[in-house]
Amino acid sequence: MRVVDLIEAKRDRGQMDPDAIRAVIAAYSRDAVPDYQMAALLMAIYLNGMSPAELAPWTDAMLRSGQVLDLGHIAGVKVDKHSTGGVGDKISLPLAPLVAACGVPVPMVSGRGLGHTGGTLDKLESIPGFRTDQTVERFVELVGTLGLGLIGQTAEIAPADKRLYALRDVTGTVASIPLIASSIMSKKLAEGIDALVLDVKVGTGAFMRTIDDARTLAETMVAIGQKMGKKVVALLTDMNQPLGRTVGNALEVRESIDILRGEGPADTTALTLELARTMLSLGGKDPAEAERALKDGRGLERFRQIIEAQGGDPRVVDDPDRLPTATREVVLEAPRDGYVGAIDTTAVGVAGVCLGAGRAKKEDAIDPAVGLTIEARLGDRVAKGQPLVRVHHADRGVDDALARLRAAYRIDDAPPTVGPLVIDRIG
Amino acid sequence: MRVVDLIEAKRDRGQMDPDAIRAVIAAYSRDAVPDYQMAALLMAIYLNGMSPAELAPWTDAMLRSGQVLDLGHIAGVKVDKHSTGGVGDKISLPLAPLVAACGVPVPMVSGRGLGHTGGTLDKLESIPGFRTDQTVERFVELVGTLGLGLIGQTAEIAPADKRLYALRDVTGTVASIPLIASSIMSKKLAEGIDALVLDVKVGTGAFMRTIDDARTLAETMVAIGQKMGKKVVALLTDMNQPLGRTVGNALEVRESIDILRGEGPADTTALTLELARTMLSLGGKDPAEAERALKDGRGLERFRQIIEAQGGDPRVVDDPDRLPTATREVVLEAPRDGYVGAIDTTAVGVAGVCLGAGRAKKEDAIDPAVGLTIEARLGDRVAKGQPLVRVHHADRGVDDALARLRAAYRIDDAPPTVGPLVIDRIG
Repeated sequence: MRVVDLIEAKRDRGQMDPDAIRAVIAAYSRDAVPDYQMAALLMAIYLNGMSPAELAPWTDAMLRSGQVLDLGHIAGVKVDKHSTGGVGDKISLPLAPLVAACGVPVPMVSGRGLGHTGGTLDKLESIPGFRTDQTVERFVELVGTLGLGLIGQTAEIAPADKRLYALRDVTGTVASIPLIASSIMSKKLAEGIDALVLDVKVGTGAFMRTIDDARTLAETMVAIGQKMGKKVVALLTDMNQPLGRTVGNALEVRESIDILRGEGPADTTALTLELARTMLSLGGKDPAEAERALKDGRGLERFRQIIEAQGGDPRVVDDPDRLPTATREVVLEAPRDGYVGAIDTTAVGVAGVCLGAGRAKKEDAIDPAVGLTIEARLGDRVAKGQPLVRVHHADRGVDDALARLRAAYRIDDAPPTVGPLVIDRIG
Repeated sequence: MRVVDLIEAKRDRGQMDPDAIRAVIAAYSRDAVPDYQMAALLMAIYLNGMSPAELAPWTDAMLRSGQVLDLGHIAGVKVDKHSTGGVGDKISLPLAPLVAACGVPVPMVSGRGLGHTGGTLDKLESIPGFRTDQTVERFVELVGTLGLGLIGQTAEIAPADKRLYALRDVTGTVASIPLIASSIMSKKLAEGIDALVLDVKVGTGAFMRTIDDARTLAETMVAIGQKMGKKVVALLTDMNQPLGRTVGNALEVRESIDILRGEGPADTTALTLELARTMLSLGGKDPAEAERALKDGRGLERFRQIIEAQGGDPRVVDDPDRLPTATREVVLEAPRDGYVGAIDTTAVGVAGVCLGAGRAKKEDAIDPAVGLTIEARLGDRVAKGQPLVRVHHADRGVDDALARLRAAYRIDDAPPTVGPLVIDRIG
């Protein structure tokens, strides 16, 4: 197998041979293919795409580059959820215990914040004592006993993806739909799941800005999953404003507890239930069980159990003030009367990063307490001086954050058309 | 300057910033840009091209990555010729002394055989004692005194091109017209020339197979040269059959001497004169002088002088039997009566390589004596058993060469249409 043959095939818009794809990915993950050849191949893929017949072996080779978890001994259909990333997207936190409480095991391997988006691991770690760095053995045990485990990607899971991702970052080949799709799917399928629900975000706060791109990404991931014998459903959901009431790690844990108490905002509660119903359905359970488990507190109770099992302080569930809390607050006020017409949601996410809710560089430390409370949503009528956003800070990056938030909110004379939260369902 | 910005600009079909191009090439040639980023950029260029506004700084930065010869103290317009490579293309050998004899200085930096094509350096070195590895100082001195010097690319000339060429070879990015054009032009413009004649080959024995591709390459190189203040003319010439009567190093030196004696084949003599007239014209001399210098022996005399000046045995000019000669010969005969309808000229070149006239791998040694005499040209009427090609060999690769030659010649019932040797002139 000559790497150059593979590069030339893709360069000339031909089909790459599946066996050659497997051989190159395997060789790359053991350092037998140099980065410069992989970089040329990635750029050819970026510009000329990959067909389903190429994507399946590509993804399969990436997931097989490392450990593939075997959860076969755990009864039930194992289902996970993955979001392509947004602002205020804390849905995994209430969702995983809710679905587990309904009898569908959820082996959830999550990520950290990336760019302007938050990460489930960072949010969970704002709970005092919570450890996401469980061993694979403990993770499997938790899924077997509590029906869920919440960890981060280990070095053993899809190492080829890890290396490719780092290379894409420095060669201008990140924003490629087949490369994004295969990266996500290789990691998720290595978890040993039977089914997967994808929450593909679209809008001003998402990596996919248009419905067409989001749909293509969703269809690509669904096709990969199906080729590999997994049940995959994708929801296209709106990310033209922050999701729910909060942005920031501990703040989002609070909102997650509210959701599981039945006291959450309408949008995050609705999306949690919609995704839970889909996961239950894939898991062979009655979708209606999701709402019952929310109402009768089973979801909250399971959240309390997993917090305790992973070393966290379970008392936060009843007393959220035990979570880290920022003591200082400034308020962004509406500059005039009108309607919230548009929100640059990426800018809102970046404002959170400025405060310390996310990382500008990999080595930055996160402040779990800081963040934003969103006081005005798209379409809301606001009077001059009325709060748009409350900024909870620790004297770091406040002016920068405020300036970004001010520029992010557009106030119009007439109300905008606000689209549905769930735009479409694929698969 | 971020390399990723440059990669992304080209990836998205935008214009690369000229200063950023210069900075990246300069950084690459001092190892400050990694190969993987350059590989991604090369693939983006391969697929999305380069505009004249990008090619000029790209080429300029490559030539400035090393030594740029200054021949300003030598009187006259310095003119060189470059061929994109063919089979039997020995034109540089009679051309350079002929033009120098007419008073136009020719600082000629040549290459070795590449793939199926021969190289001027290999041909010259078949003359006993001839040294092409002259120092730059000696080369400049020869151009000043004899009006010509014949050397190879030194490590000091366009090192960025050398490194880029090696990278292109292993990343599937060789056959890109802007990258080919900038590679050729950066080396040639570093020679300190004022004007350049390009012989762009097209046909079954050339790297450019179609007239459209050859024309694009020619126009691209002419545009680069003009942007950089040099007079550049390109001829598109036919490479659908070997040029002249011989293929192989010492054999081509013999033919070169024949040309300078006025006894050469019609096609190589015509092309030598055509290129000489163009060079003289660019050099501000009377083009008609070329034919006079051929007839009165001034060209041959200058060839004798440069051979002697560069350490070679000048007696070969009067006694070509002093050149290395293969003692064994086999003949490829016409398989039937008919007309020579087509010649796969690349296959003819590869047949020569099989015999040892060229290198299959970089470290292979060349046999200067072996090669081919072409006995039948396109359109020739041949009878069954009549010689098509004489194979001069040293018991190495003969069967392979014969098989390739047999497959390379197509004998038809009707004569083919044979196009002109000089197809077009650009610039």
